[in-house]
Amino acid sequence: MYKIIGTWKKMSKNENEQITLGSVLTRSGKLFQDKPILSIFSNKRKEYTYKDFYKRSKSLASFLLKLGLKKGDRIGTLMHNHHIHLEAYFGIPSAGLVVHTINIKLHEDDIAYIINHAEDKVLIIDIELLSLLEKIKNKINVKHIIVANYDLQSTHSYIDYEMDVMLTDPDDFMFPLIHENDVAGMCYSSGTTGKPKGVVYTHRNICLYTIVSSGSAAFNLKDSDIVLPLVPMYHVNAWCLPFMAIYTGCKIVLPFAYNGAGKLIELMEREKINFVAGATTLWYDVAQELEKRNFTHSLTKNVTVNLGGSSPSKETLLTLLKSGIKVIHTWGMTESTPNGLINKINKEISPENIDEIAENLTRQGIPYPFMEVKVERNGRIVPQDGKTMGHLLIKSPWTIKSYFKGEGQDSFIDGFLDTGDVAVVYPDGYIKIVDRSKDLIRSGGEWISSVDLENALIAREDILDVAVVACPHPKWGERPIAFIVTKKDSHLDKNLLKNYLMGQFAKWWIPDDFIFVDKIPRNPTGKIIKKTLRDTLSNYNFTLIS
Amino acid sequence: MYKIIGTWKKMSKNENEQITLGSVLTRSGKLFQDKPILSIFSNKRKEYTYKDFYKRSKSLASFLLKLGLKKGDRIGTLMHNHHIHLEAYFGIPSAGLVVHTINIKLHEDDIAYIINHAEDKVLIIDIELLSLLEKIKNKINVKHIIVANYDLQSTHSYIDYEMDVMLTDPDDFMFPLIHENDVAGMCYSSGTTGKPKGVVYTHRNICLYTIVSSGSAAFNLKDSDIVLPLVPMYHVNAWCLPFMAIYTGCKIVLPFAYNGAGKLIELMEREKINFVAGATTLWYDVAQELEKRNFTHSLTKNVTVNLGGSSPSKETLLTLLKSGIKVIHTWGMTESTPNGLINKINKEISPENIDEIAENLTRQGIPYPFMEVKVERNGRIVPQDGKTMGHLLIKSPWTIKSYFKGEGQDSFIDGFLDTGDVAVVYPDGYIKIVDRSKDLIRSGGEWISSVDLENALIAREDILDVAVVACPHPKWGERPIAFIVTKKDSHLDKNLLKNYLMGQFAKWWIPDDFIFVDKIPRNPTGKIIKKTLRDTLSNYNFTLIS
Repeated sequence: MYKIIGTWKKMSKNENEQITLGSVLTRSGKLFQDKPILSIFSNKRKEYTYKDFYKRSKSLASFLLKLGLKKGDRIGTLMHNHHIHLEAYFGIPSAGLVVHTINIKLHEDDIAYIINHAEDKVLIIDIELLSLLEKIKNKINVKHIIVANYDLQSTHSYIDYEMDVMLTDPDDFMFPLIHENDVAGMCYSSGTTGKPKGVVYTHRNICLYTIVSSGSAAFNLKDSDIVLPLVPMYHVNAWCLPFMAIYTGCKIVLPFAYNGAGKLIELMEREKINFVAGATTLWYDVAQELEKRNFTHSLTKNVTVNLGGSSPSKETLLTLLKSGIKVIHTWGMTESTPNGLINKINKEISPENIDEIAENLTRQGIPYPFMEVKVERNGRIVPQDGKTMGHLLIKSPWTIKSYFKGEGQDSFIDGFLDTGDVAVVYPDGYIKIVDRSKDLIRSGGEWISSVDLENALIAREDILDVAVVACPHPKWGERPIAFIVTKKDSHLDKNLLKNYLMGQFAKWWIPDDFIFVDKIPRNPTGKIIKKTLRDTLSNYNFTLIS
Repeated sequence: MYKIIGTWKKMSKNENEQITLGSVLTRSGKLFQDKPILSIFSNKRKEYTYKDFYKRSKSLASFLLKLGLKKGDRIGTLMHNHHIHLEAYFGIPSAGLVVHTINIKLHEDDIAYIINHAEDKVLIIDIELLSLLEKIKNKINVKHIIVANYDLQSTHSYIDYEMDVMLTDPDDFMFPLIHENDVAGMCYSSGTTGKPKGVVYTHRNICLYTIVSSGSAAFNLKDSDIVLPLVPMYHVNAWCLPFMAIYTGCKIVLPFAYNGAGKLIELMEREKINFVAGATTLWYDVAQELEKRNFTHSLTKNVTVNLGGSSPSKETLLTLLKSGIKVIHTWGMTESTPNGLINKINKEISPENIDEIAENLTRQGIPYPFMEVKVERNGRIVPQDGKTMGHLLIKSPWTIKSYFKGEGQDSFIDGFLDTGDVAVVYPDGYIKIVDRSKDLIRSGGEWISSVDLENALIAREDILDVAVVACPHPKWGERPIAFIVTKKDSHLDKNLLKNYLMGQFAKWWIPDDFIFVDKIPRNPTGKIIKKTLRDTLSNYNFTLIS
């Protein structure tokens, strides 16, 4: 490598202006004054404008600082997707504080752990989650509790968001000077094992990600778009769609929570949504529903769906594409604000190419700009052959270099984050995740993708759910074992499934056993808890297989 | 103002990954390998791919570093718009060097001054500009001269870009570690008075501007776009369109130089251009040409035109809009990489609203994201009434805070750059430039916009060109005087023009005199040299006016 000799002489006194969320809030609040933001609650619709949003975010910021909080103090939020959570997304960081979004679906002990670990000084909680608060109240130590009282009920002895916080004069608030490397937000990553770890986002992380991701390299949002952040706002900043939408000046529809495919389709039709981001699993339901309705609906005119979180099946993608939906497949993680890879269709879809396009869309895609990606095995970059698997490592301006309080140091290698995913790289540079590193089956020095086997099995009409896990083997190290949930009245047996897979995989990939079960254990976010399944195999005896 | 008490405790060891042009080059070179870049020379077309561009940019970088250049050394370019200049745009900064683009239209003495002032170590010059080099050769002190030999002629004793530079093995080159605050580029601002001043761009300036400007807040480029950078690449980085295009993965057509409206229309039709950026003046010609051809052409299907550099007349905008062209009006300056304001149409155009839309598009627009804008007079922000004029001050992550070598310090006030423009702000937040500060006519404590008067006069069929300047007046301080170039056979007189303007302006705005001349003096970039006109008025006697 060529080495630059000498030092750089500063040519000018150019100091950088900072890119901060307060700057985004101010511009959009002033320029898109009349643009609407709509929250949909179970019993009402609440619509207001960017101007209201801007003023209320400032009231929140002012109120919090008047409580005596100091720069960098964490404010925990336990809220669904609605305008008050959006105000927290912008008002808290604009005050120099940290918006710490907490996953309300976690076990109450984990929630208490997270609040204590983050040292949250204030909690803002949905009024309908007060029963959750009662359960954790004695285990945590926060100074103030604010209730997002969108139902205007009694909030007992707690601070009322509408009656107390919003009384603060927004004009009283001046934005404090914030550096882009100051912390703006915080999330805990929901691992399937171990305690959750804190992920800290700076203003720079979020702003850079927002600009890049709303722009030409990713979603190409326009201020005429009507967007639906379907990813919960307590989950990785709802994939930052709220930030991108406010930055761009889109109309925003906040759905509170996902309520099933049927209701989602109706909502999208009614509100004329043309951009929506949500987890892959839920688009499986939508695809089913669309097929059931014979595609007779106006939903899919001009709608872009961003899916991610887990690999979509080709079948789901085909159904979505057939119904005219534009699909953008992204891959990301809490640790990366979130996205690192993106797969967009850049040609016209026709009956001739739709199958190939769906197949290609199952891949997670190409790296985002400024995202460095390595797929390596034993420290060497794998060839771009679409076959050789390696560990996926990433580095970018919005990927963390350490967890909060320095935990989980073994995830970082030479400045890169080990994503825990295993991937292959295709000749065209596209990357496909084939497994989680810990779920990979290492058999006789070779790697077997549990996900590939699962995808092949779930494609069968007679299988409802499936999980393939590694089982310790005296000779091969590990061998794959499949757990199968069959559909009612299906007549499946082991040999039938073996023969079925034989046609698609090398012989040594075929699971040694197929165990029929009633249910596959999954965590609150829908991921298979493979550890539980592996535990049931601790005394498994390979010699007994017929 | 609320003051944050206490200090920020660093929560994590998050070091920032840098946003640099080398990172953009590498990603696009690898991911958009097969995308074409087309250069159009007078006698041939040269088409190659992003892959070739990437390799050749690396060869250039490697060659320059092998010459022994050090980080931050300036490389001057004297080139038109073609692929070699594009390679310089990326190859030079990726090597940790500074690409200093020099305006070839300046007087040779100014060019020599600029090269010496920037301390350029190397020059890269078009083969057809060797006669210019002969004129300045003895006045400058550069170590190496490289000739962009696209014609494969003899380059005499100079280094031949094709035969020498491109022989360097690109695989030999590894990108040096560059900080985003390192300098990437340099331009001299072409003032109408005084010596040119150096403007220095960091990687951060250019990259941030590129991401924001290619994205949702501005041009919404897509990798399916075919773009034409018409602004000369020696003028403010061709408004950064080459950077945006490579970042996005667009097909790029480099036209060498502007060759008249007719040829431009043919070029755009032939190459299926759908995004083009060029100076306002040239779109006046195009509008005329389109009208002449009765709009019978395929050019204007799906074409977006970005114009700027001077205020477009409503008539020109109307013609462009009528022919189906989408117009984006931007305002910027060399000192701001360049854009600070943008005006996009965000509704469907119909016969009912086209007039209003054209009128609104004459305004320079709303601030870019992260752009702080103040319009003030005597240190106070002017009301948003669309009438009260004030000085336009700006501050942003891509606006300089000082000139090279600390010159021109009086342009900076409290971290803001005084743009030298005078503007009004409308109730909807849109800003309109009404004059240059130095061209404004200050009459009896009030301000009169010379540009408004010029626009009203040029709208007449019988006027070819016009300039309104301030003339010192014993009682009022200054009064406006108009210089008029009439069309052949027109029968204009002073009273006729006075009465014409009376209908549109307050009485005290009407110029005291109308002087008929053969020609209005303009500088190489088309700006009126008002100083020359003012000088002719130094002994003007107001009492003689009839």
